[in-house]
Amino acid sequence: MIIKYGIDASMAARAIDAAAAYATGAGLRMCIAIADESGDLKAFLRMDGAPKLSLQIAQDKAFTAACFGLATHGWYDFIKNDPPLLHGVGSIPRLVIFGGGFPVVVDEGMIGAIGVSGGHYTQDMDCARAGLAAIGARVE
Amino acid sequence: MIIKYGIDASMAARAIDAAAAYATGAGLRMCIAIADESGDLKAFLRMDGAPKLSLQIAQDKAFTAACFGLATHGWYDFIKNDPPLLHGVGSIPRLVIFGGGFPVVVDEGMIGAIGVSGGHYTQDMDCARAGLAAIGARVE
Amino acid sequence: MIIKYGIDASMAARAIDAAAAYATGAGLRMCIAIADESGDLKAFLRMDGAPKLSLQIAQDKAFTAACFGLATHGWYDFIKNDPPLLHGVGSIPRLVIFGGGFPVVVDEGMIGAIGVSGGHYTQDMDCARAGLAAIGARVE
Amino acid sequence: MIIKYGIDASMAARAIDAAAAYATGAGLRMCIAIADESGDLKAFLRMDGAPKLSLQIAQDKAFTAACFGLATHGWYDFIKNDPPLLHGVGSIPRLVIFGGGFPVVVDEGMIGAIGVSGGHYTQDMDCARAGLAAIGARVE
Repeated sequence: MIIKYGIDASMAARAIDAAAAYATGAGLRMCIAIADESGDLKAFLRMDGAPKLSLQIAQDKAFTAACFGLATHGWYDFIKNDPPLLHGVGSIPRLVIFGGGFPVVVDEGMIGAIGVSGGHYTQDMDCARAGLAAIGARVE
Repeated sequence: MIIKYGIDASMAARAIDAAAAYATGAGLRMCIAIADESGDLKAFLRMDGAPKLSLQIAQDKAFTAACFGLATHGWYDFIKNDPPLLHGVGSIPRLVIFGGGFPVVVDEGMIGAIGVSGGHYTQDMDCARAGLAAIGARVE
Repeated sequence: MIIKYGIDASMAARAIDAAAAYATGAGLRMCIAIADESGDLKAFLRMDGAPKLSLQIAQDKAFTAACFGLATHGWYDFIKNDPPLLHGVGSIPRLVIFGGGFPVVVDEGMIGAIGVSGGHYTQDMDCARAGLAAIGARVE
Repeated sequence: MIIKYGIDASMAARAIDAAAAYATGAGLRMCIAIADESGDLKAFLRMDGAPKLSLQIAQDKAFTAACFGLATHGWYDFIKNDPPLLHGVGSIPRLVIFGGGFPVVVDEGMIGAIGVSGGHYTQDMDCARAGLAAIGARVE
């Protein structure tokens, strides 16, 4: 059998709150999504004024990160010298290859993912890391 | 121009918390979605153990309620003696005709909607009403 | 070769204006879509306050009417005693089986369709007929 | 609560008429879409002879412009030296990074967007600007 560990609602809410608090402090307006270990949406918040397109991108970043257990910002280095991948990833629904999606990794393994969208991806990454730190998850 | 009023992140979080607290007290596990006045997702929570199919249903209930400003449980009475509608609504994406979706109506008008899924729809409705009451919205 | 006749932009605009004027006079708020003879969107208007779900339904009614050259309200009588169809049409994307979609038929044949959504389908039908009449198309 | 201002049907129609008149004068055939402040379609026209692929592109340009409040032609400069974005945007549904989509910005803020497609994007931009000018919106 396979034993799976998934992020619970309380952890998800704390991660969102911390990411949103960081964003507020930095003057940013973000969409923040938490997925569980299977990539399904666990919790979500669209901060007031966050751009609409970020609604889906935040969810897709969390989905991408959960689906491979890898941060989304790692994808570009992985594919940049591999033209079929570099030009092919655009056709894969929900795969995001820029920063802002991170797996939520704890001692038991990967229990979910966080995805943030609303600023430049480096800002998205900072917000997501604040969310990870708040729940004791590994911060890359 | 058209002036619109939308639910803010703080209200959305309070509605979800209250709906989830009610569900916990009743031994239920729900997905709870808040949409804004245009039907876009504003906040979401999947309580631990809530069924996966409810992920989308909760969001669709909120969407349906926001799209017409009507509670989803009102649809069946409206269409039950109107065969073309009764048999035709199945082809409309995201339209939910059983209970658990309510518009969020305040003095300024309809500012969003709440959708709850995870139990029988009468239980979903009770949880949603707890969410509405917590933010001072009209409870049908 | 196949010769096709399609509604032009001017006719489409006149049909929308007439349908909208009728709706305004009746205190209704509608989404009004015109498709060409191939089912592609030709023109569209969401009247102020028209429900969001009607955005897609109006377009789908016009699409359905153009795709078969039949008014959408004719579908139910056609399928009501044929259970596989009656219960199967719900799975067909964009097929609407209640009123509000009409083909635009002139001497040259079917040149497009109009779809209206926002009220009960009988109201939608009245608005659509006003649009048809304004451009000299056949009114069923 | 969040207060939002949306473009109304009359403004939308005037913007389309002006963009279409400009296109006619320039010998162009365009699809012209107006979205409201939340990105939903408000009005649309496919001029006679406008290419079919432009149907969706025009709507997506308006959607993209409304979703961030930015003109679509600004995206390429923003991402051209940022390879993860340059190669990553292809996976984002409805995001258009070439010209022809503009937010509709008035004193009250961003109330919607216009998207034009049918010529080279520089021609699309000229038509869209004619639409913006006709309703007193900011022209970049």
